[in-house]
Amino acid sequence: MSQEVLELLSQHRCFDGEQRYYRHESSVIGLPMRFSVYLPPQAQDGPVPVLFFLAGLTCTEETFMIKAGAQRFAAQYGLMLVAPDTSPRGAGCPGEDDDWDFGTGAGFYLDATQSPWSKHYRMESYITQELFAIVTSALPGNASCVGITGHSMGGHGALVLAQRHPKLFESVSAFAPIATPSRCPWGEKAFSAYLGKDRQAWANYDASLLMEQSQNPFPKGILVDQGLADGFLEEQLRPEAFVAACAQAQQPLILRKHEGYDHGYYFISTFMKDHIAFHAERLGAV
Amino acid sequence: MSQEVLELLSQHRCFDGEQRYYRHESSVIGLPMRFSVYLPPQAQDGPVPVLFFLAGLTCTEETFMIKAGAQRFAAQYGLMLVAPDTSPRGAGCPGEDDDWDFGTGAGFYLDATQSPWSKHYRMESYITQELFAIVTSALPGNASCVGITGHSMGGHGALVLAQRHPKLFESVSAFAPIATPSRCPWGEKAFSAYLGKDRQAWANYDASLLMEQSQNPFPKGILVDQGLADGFLEEQLRPEAFVAACAQAQQPLILRKHEGYDHGYYFISTFMKDHIAFHAERLGAV
Repeated sequence: MSQEVLELLSQHRCFDGEQRYYRHESSVIGLPMRFSVYLPPQAQDGPVPVLFFLAGLTCTEETFMIKAGAQRFAAQYGLMLVAPDTSPRGAGCPGEDDDWDFGTGAGFYLDATQSPWSKHYRMESYITQELFAIVTSALPGNASCVGITGHSMGGHGALVLAQRHPKLFESVSAFAPIATPSRCPWGEKAFSAYLGKDRQAWANYDASLLMEQSQNPFPKGILVDQGLADGFLEEQLRPEAFVAACAQAQQPLILRKHEGYDHGYYFISTFMKDHIAFHAERLGAV
Repeated sequence: MSQEVLELLSQHRCFDGEQRYYRHESSVIGLPMRFSVYLPPQAQDGPVPVLFFLAGLTCTEETFMIKAGAQRFAAQYGLMLVAPDTSPRGAGCPGEDDDWDFGTGAGFYLDATQSPWSKHYRMESYITQELFAIVTSALPGNASCVGITGHSMGGHGALVLAQRHPKLFESVSAFAPIATPSRCPWGEKAFSAYLGKDRQAWANYDASLLMEQSQNPFPKGILVDQGLADGFLEEQLRPEAFVAACAQAQQPLILRKHEGYDHGYYFISTFMKDHIAFHAERLGAV
């Protein structure tokens, strides 16, 4: 991956580092993709640990960078932040722009197997292969010190990609994740279109079902924050399924439940510092 | 001002306080207005100091609250944050929606004297009378401990309203303010329409010209941050005019120039902590 294929759309100095927005022709997706990175000041001196943030339904590569307040702490710990978009854009699949919770802005961080989605909706391979390579070769990310986190659909993405790619991700956390998408309306809608009607295939992208088949895959623990005033908690998020799976897998899990907090970025920003510190410690950041 | 005239649009728990959005029928503006407040946890125990933030061109009452990362420090110091909208909405003046730097989203925090703008474009009276009364009576703001800050057009607003209403505002700071609007294109465009062609009237709303007529109006000092990669610096912002005026008025001014920083919220968020601390100290916050 050579640097010249990356188009730098904008850059902004931020906490003595650089907030950057890029566009590139993605070979995995087969369409132009955008992503954002925050380079901490420490990146001027060489490779730094990396934290991926996967955003939720309707978000873009910008949402996390403008709303979460993470750069302050990324600069403090010397962490590079990476935020991909939440789906391909302009794939041309019928119905992709009809619903806010499906299609555009709702790629669910998987590789679709069903036509017509399978042509472009390949967010898992995009992130774990193409974007991972970009940020650790064309950009100064340390490929052996990478963590992943995310929110809601992106919390699902973080918990799933970390389990499916344990050699890539050293640390994992999530904010209000869709904890068992094969058993909630958002996930059922997306999975049946992207993966087909056979629910056997869904288990590969269900954080709780994956965990049930594991044995303590993250000995350094997993951190999950959940607001108790989150309107999606009972029907869509269902963290209790992940708690039970972690117990079964003897996976250390720190699940923090926060009275009064809802599903939005005011909740995320409140606990972002803790997640940055959690990953920094596990990634050996300063 | 009774609480029942305020319509609570949404509220979100944030750093153990409350982020709220309100709408009300503004008697000063003659139209519905929106504003946002952040109530720190300390507000549960009684009145707290208040910091107004006036946003820049094209912004709304939401911009500061989602992008600046101020709530973390407002919660720490026990400061209430208040962000009004940047203009009336739907005033129906010809041309108000034609340009991004004039009319809607560009009220310039003054009371227009020229028809048709004078009917609704009365942001100075709205903020200093109506909104000030709301946040210190219907909401738990301490009316004797109020500061004001802002960005760009809102930096102009903060420096001007603080000087024109010294009994209301105990502390003042600004990010990249339009420092002498009567001598820059944005200000000339807005002032000639809102205040008329007579430039004598413009001096009342020009932070630098007002300061020239003063004698150390803020003995506790004024803090201004300015990015040196700000594309509007030389033509529109012109901080050197304010520096000269403060020198003439023997007004203590802390002007910090930051290499590489541009005009956006990545710049603002980087230095927000310092501004909150600056106001907290001068307002006697904990």
